[in-house]
Amino acid sequence: MINKLVNDIKKKEAPIVVGLDPTLKLVPEWVLEKNYKEYGENLKAVGEAIFEYNKAIVDAVADLVPAVKPQIAMYEQFGIEGMIAFKKTVDYCKEKDLTVIADIKRGDIGSTSEAYALGHLGHVNINGKSFAGFDEDFATVNPYLGVDGIKPFIDVCAKEKKGIFVLVKTSNPSSGEFQDRLIDGKPLYEEVAMKVKEWGESLMGDEYSYVGAVVGATYPEMGAYLRKVMPKNYILVPGYGAQGGTGKDLKAFFNEDGLGAIINSSRGIIGAYKQEKYARFGEKNYYDAARQAVIDMKEDIKNAL
Amino acid sequence: MINKLVNDIKKKEAPIVVGLDPTLKLVPEWVLEKNYKEYGENLKAVGEAIFEYNKAIVDAVADLVPAVKPQIAMYEQFGIEGMIAFKKTVDYCKEKDLTVIADIKRGDIGSTSEAYALGHLGHVNINGKSFAGFDEDFATVNPYLGVDGIKPFIDVCAKEKKGIFVLVKTSNPSSGEFQDRLIDGKPLYEEVAMKVKEWGESLMGDEYSYVGAVVGATYPEMGAYLRKVMPKNYILVPGYGAQGGTGKDLKAFFNEDGLGAIINSSRGIIGAYKQEKYARFGEKNYYDAARQAVIDMKEDIKNAL
Repeated sequence: MINKLVNDIKKKEAPIVVGLDPTLKLVPEWVLEKNYKEYGENLKAVGEAIFEYNKAIVDAVADLVPAVKPQIAMYEQFGIEGMIAFKKTVDYCKEKDLTVIADIKRGDIGSTSEAYALGHLGHVNINGKSFAGFDEDFATVNPYLGVDGIKPFIDVCAKEKKGIFVLVKTSNPSSGEFQDRLIDGKPLYEEVAMKVKEWGESLMGDEYSYVGAVVGATYPEMGAYLRKVMPKNYILVPGYGAQGGTGKDLKAFFNEDGLGAIINSSRGIIGAYKQEKYARFGEKNYYDAARQAVIDMKEDIKNAL
Repeated sequence: MINKLVNDIKKKEAPIVVGLDPTLKLVPEWVLEKNYKEYGENLKAVGEAIFEYNKAIVDAVADLVPAVKPQIAMYEQFGIEGMIAFKKTVDYCKEKDLTVIADIKRGDIGSTSEAYALGHLGHVNINGKSFAGFDEDFATVNPYLGVDGIKPFIDVCAKEKKGIFVLVKTSNPSSGEFQDRLIDGKPLYEEVAMKVKEWGESLMGDEYSYVGAVVGATYPEMGAYLRKVMPKNYILVPGYGAQGGTGKDLKAFFNEDGLGAIINSSRGIIGAYKQEKYARFGEKNYYDAARQAVIDMKEDIKNAL
């Protein structure tokens, strides 16, 4: 999948991933009402509304971007019905030939991480038959438990030709609370980055590793440094747009070849219709607003590089 | 819930939580076959088999223990059908008046952690009506993202009178890779523990805080130290039994009052029928083997304290 992702980034000239993070505040009122009418005011209706909302956005942007990143928490909050909407979204995006980066931030002791890896990227074996649980292409992984929690993901990735992005330096304001603390003079996130480099060397694609890193757009100086620490690991960069990262901050995350980073925008794209800049599209055409926001983001990144 | 948990631990004289971590290797062949016959060899059958397996174990141990801890990964690996089995397990355990500690190890940036917190411990609001997604009593939380990722859980806990256990020192062999690294002369896990103490002070129950910590039974010396760092925070202790922690290792995790820790055993109880010690029960009566293993574990802990 890393080769496909890199090739699609080149082909579409878009190092961009659309964050499919639907919330009840982002789904237009008319989409919600339509589904409330059909299913009642309940979790089922919300799950259906979320999928409908996602589907129209995916249809509108699929030719422009290589990948989507559904944030599973935004589905999980609605229980089983939310999880069904998540799974339908994953399947639909794959039908559209998009790479699906599942933002799940899982990580546990070995046997448990193996279960997560099998469920999200691999297959379980039932009496000799093989079944996929969620079947995404990439997953984000939390490193706090050390290599025990990462290795099972890497093993499954090796078998399935899939990939992970390990949290190194997250985009949130308090990410420094533990991640920036100095260990032998080096911040914890750098220690993690050095491990990501090491883990990644064992699973290389054509140009980049199947093991990538998450580094927030909100920390461009650290991004510039981490880019050098992990030259062959793709960096997934959240925090652009709504969280405060800007186009000019992004250059630092890329290599000289113009590759090596993929920038996520969630609310900035899927909620574009709520911004004054895109108000002309109206709530009815939220997906056209999303498409225009992707075009503008491409331009912003192109200018920055 | 922390008051109920502490009271039930006292009442049942059992600082024990049964880990409901079903895998295809643990579910007896006859339970699987029965469900394959009914539903076919597929994920649905596995979900049903898992719930049937859990239900009989819960029936057999509910009068002996205060709490259960389903590890969500073991369900998530089977996709939507697994998640349905998870939800049915949570609901059934609550019907049986057991406290449900969901081992989910979630943690993300603020808005995303809020979604996890609402989905697992709280309620979402749909047009003025309130719905619970998974509705567990406690959840385990990963601290790597700092307070941003913890605060939304604490806010939901305050509203719902529920609780969390923050990963401090995990039970796995490589937990030291990052958690033991020294920051200003103190290991990272101690930094996290000091934060758990601080966060916990803002949300106290009668004797203990709604904010607890996870510290592995496999590290009793660190447990003894961390016990003193966080005197008012309950410690959830995994790693007893199958992972290598023994009864005599456990004393360190308790306060002078005999409280302050709750010991998890998963495979050691739910897979007891596979051990030579409990072979007399046979595969057919796996739940009776589980009951005997709980009785023996109670005795082991009593002797250690």
